[in-house]
Amino acid sequence: MRADQAAMATELVRTMGERARVAARQLAVVSGAQKNLALNQIAEAILGGARSLLMENAKDVEAAKKDGLNAAMIGRLTLTEAKIQQIAVGLKEIALQRDPVGETMEAYERPNGLRIEKRRVPLGVVAIIFESRPNVTADAAAICLKSGNACILRGGKEALSSNRAIAERIHEGLTAAGISPDAVQLVDTTDRAIVPALATAEGLIDLIIPRGGEGLIRSVVEAATIPVIKHYKGVCHVYIDKAADPDIAVKIAVSAKVDGVGVCNTEECLLVHKDIAPKVFPRIAEAFRAKKVEMRADQLSLGLLQNAKLAKETDWGHEFLDYIIAIKQVASTDEAIAHITKYGSQHTDAIITNDLIAARKFIAEVDSASVMVNASTRFADGGEYGLGAEIGISTDKLHSRGPMGAADLTTYKYIVTGNGHIRV
Amino acid sequence: MRADQAAMATELVRTMGERARVAARQLAVVSGAQKNLALNQIAEAILGGARSLLMENAKDVEAAKKDGLNAAMIGRLTLTEAKIQQIAVGLKEIALQRDPVGETMEAYERPNGLRIEKRRVPLGVVAIIFESRPNVTADAAAICLKSGNACILRGGKEALSSNRAIAERIHEGLTAAGISPDAVQLVDTTDRAIVPALATAEGLIDLIIPRGGEGLIRSVVEAATIPVIKHYKGVCHVYIDKAADPDIAVKIAVSAKVDGVGVCNTEECLLVHKDIAPKVFPRIAEAFRAKKVEMRADQLSLGLLQNAKLAKETDWGHEFLDYIIAIKQVASTDEAIAHITKYGSQHTDAIITNDLIAARKFIAEVDSASVMVNASTRFADGGEYGLGAEIGISTDKLHSRGPMGAADLTTYKYIVTGNGHIRV
Repeated sequence: MRADQAAMATELVRTMGERARVAARQLAVVSGAQKNLALNQIAEAILGGARSLLMENAKDVEAAKKDGLNAAMIGRLTLTEAKIQQIAVGLKEIALQRDPVGETMEAYERPNGLRIEKRRVPLGVVAIIFESRPNVTADAAAICLKSGNACILRGGKEALSSNRAIAERIHEGLTAAGISPDAVQLVDTTDRAIVPALATAEGLIDLIIPRGGEGLIRSVVEAATIPVIKHYKGVCHVYIDKAADPDIAVKIAVSAKVDGVGVCNTEECLLVHKDIAPKVFPRIAEAFRAKKVEMRADQLSLGLLQNAKLAKETDWGHEFLDYIIAIKQVASTDEAIAHITKYGSQHTDAIITNDLIAARKFIAEVDSASVMVNASTRFADGGEYGLGAEIGISTDKLHSRGPMGAADLTTYKYIVTGNGHIRV
Repeated sequence: MRADQAAMATELVRTMGERARVAARQLAVVSGAQKNLALNQIAEAILGGARSLLMENAKDVEAAKKDGLNAAMIGRLTLTEAKIQQIAVGLKEIALQRDPVGETMEAYERPNGLRIEKRRVPLGVVAIIFESRPNVTADAAAICLKSGNACILRGGKEALSSNRAIAERIHEGLTAAGISPDAVQLVDTTDRAIVPALATAEGLIDLIIPRGGEGLIRSVVEAATIPVIKHYKGVCHVYIDKAADPDIAVKIAVSAKVDGVGVCNTEECLLVHKDIAPKVFPRIAEAFRAKKVEMRADQLSLGLLQNAKLAKETDWGHEFLDYIIAIKQVASTDEAIAHITKYGSQHTDAIITNDLIAARKFIAEVDSASVMVNASTRFADGGEYGLGAEIGISTDKLHSRGPMGAADLTTYKYIVTGNGHIRV
């Protein structure tokens, strides 16, 4: 990167950041009703501007086709009438959610009579870097707005025309609700120097959330001097304990894979206690064969899993995001936990068991954001947890862990009230 | 820094980090009773080993004198019988505190019958970098132990002999309680390359807390790829509103400065509404003169503050940590808030008022970790907030803000229980 390019990016981020700071101060004291009005106005502006939005999106799609992007990527990039409806519905749903700001998290009185209150407040300014789905622009802006944060959004270069058109609708909605359009700013350049400039904007940006491939996330983490919340990958395990109900075990082991192969909470590795393997493996293998799932199993299991291939060492801990699953027999819950500790990504891991003590052990010892008992890993999701719209899933442990909703974009302040208290 | 030096530091941190990880897994499932037993055993070991501790400390003090350290630094470095007693009392108090681990933070049932529980768990491995007070070694170890975390401690080079002696006592106590001594590891080298090695130990260390001068903290933040919680400085303001009770105003304005000039929650700047200035300034000036506090005031206030000097621009937002205070008149609560927003450090700011609406405005608009109403800024402290022993004060907004106790060294996991739930 050239020095003048970096300097220009820093200057652009400084200008945007300062405007965002001013907007954030306004947003921090705006009522919940006014934020909800803005969300509804944005939804209306997006519906009303659907035609021009589709036109702008068509430019992106055409360019992407010319650039030879694959069908899946073009699918994610393409907006339709139905997707625009969905965006608007999503915005209105966020308006209906509970406002996290202003909540008293704790309050108590100290022996000296001081009242201490820990009250939820917005973070301030949040930067989000994401890739080609243009609907993220609206979703991310909405969650930031709901939680009282100004945001700076940096989308993928393939979606720039679509994102510009959505940002215009967002600005219309904000203005109609009396909120500064600086509350949601889109980085209107594809310059790569913007990413490190955002990640080092101390005093201007309070949090940066990179969403996308591991390369993007790593580049943000390495450059960052401001806090980052990230999600590297999901290598989720399902462990079928010897005391599992076989019907439940088969149902979850199969569904956690085939119900959504391309997402971070999908099952990538199935661990099965040796005592129950003969009972469940044939049924699981049959279901996977029917769904065209490639099974890569340890030597011990091959005989019980018709059509399975021998797994390689690199298959353990691998995030396939595809119709492929790694399968292994274990001799104990301890061995299952040790495997998950070694190969897992601390995202989501499940035990299928009817044995309370085994479940308790698994819950205590598996150090993952979500631990499932007799439920599919696929439930690790903000919507499923009732957090409302999801801004991402954190595999970090600080601040937020697991699915993140609007409340995860808040911090708190202590409000201490006395009647002339001094320390003596 | 030489490349081989960096490689050696990385290797040392890797070895320590891996041992800490194993210890952390043990600590995560140890009972509260066992952790408390360890804390009490450490206290006994420190009391029992007081003589050798004093001898080791004497070596550090002698070397520090030879190196020409100033009296204040030598004072902080020096252990006495009384300080050792205090360390032991502190450890026993932490044993008596509530265990944050295992607390159910939220639990609810979703419409589909899934039970969702958000349960507090330890972070894992915490690294703490600190300067010359050897008692921090025991305090930091104790808070980490209480919260179920393994820790890696890196103290100041002036205190290395003392810290080694304390670490030995800690290991005795841990062993006596059946906990691995790897749960508390001291970095036994003064090599500076250790700091960036700790700050980039992804997967081995979950959080790094630098405590000390701004240079140290900045070097950690810039190197870090793992989360950092820090506290740059405290530039705390007291604003006397026109509706303040004059007696309360004078009492707090004076006490917040003179009660402890060298600490981060001390008042560094006093803002006074012009309508009340004539009433309170002469009394405040008299008290500050009596306590030998140098007043640096704006032009407008000089006439009302006998002996005050004219403030320079650099006096606003300055952390004096000395018998010096900046003083300014303002025309409104808005002007006071604008001054705090521009010059404050988001640590702790106070309003003295009897006007509910002014207080409400100040609370809402001052974006600081602690906002005081009719109370001294000096109360911003973990002990005063009832958090138990304090591991530091965060001026960050992510994860923890303001005073941090044992609960701030925890994260959570979602525990999701079903009876065969799959997504459909």
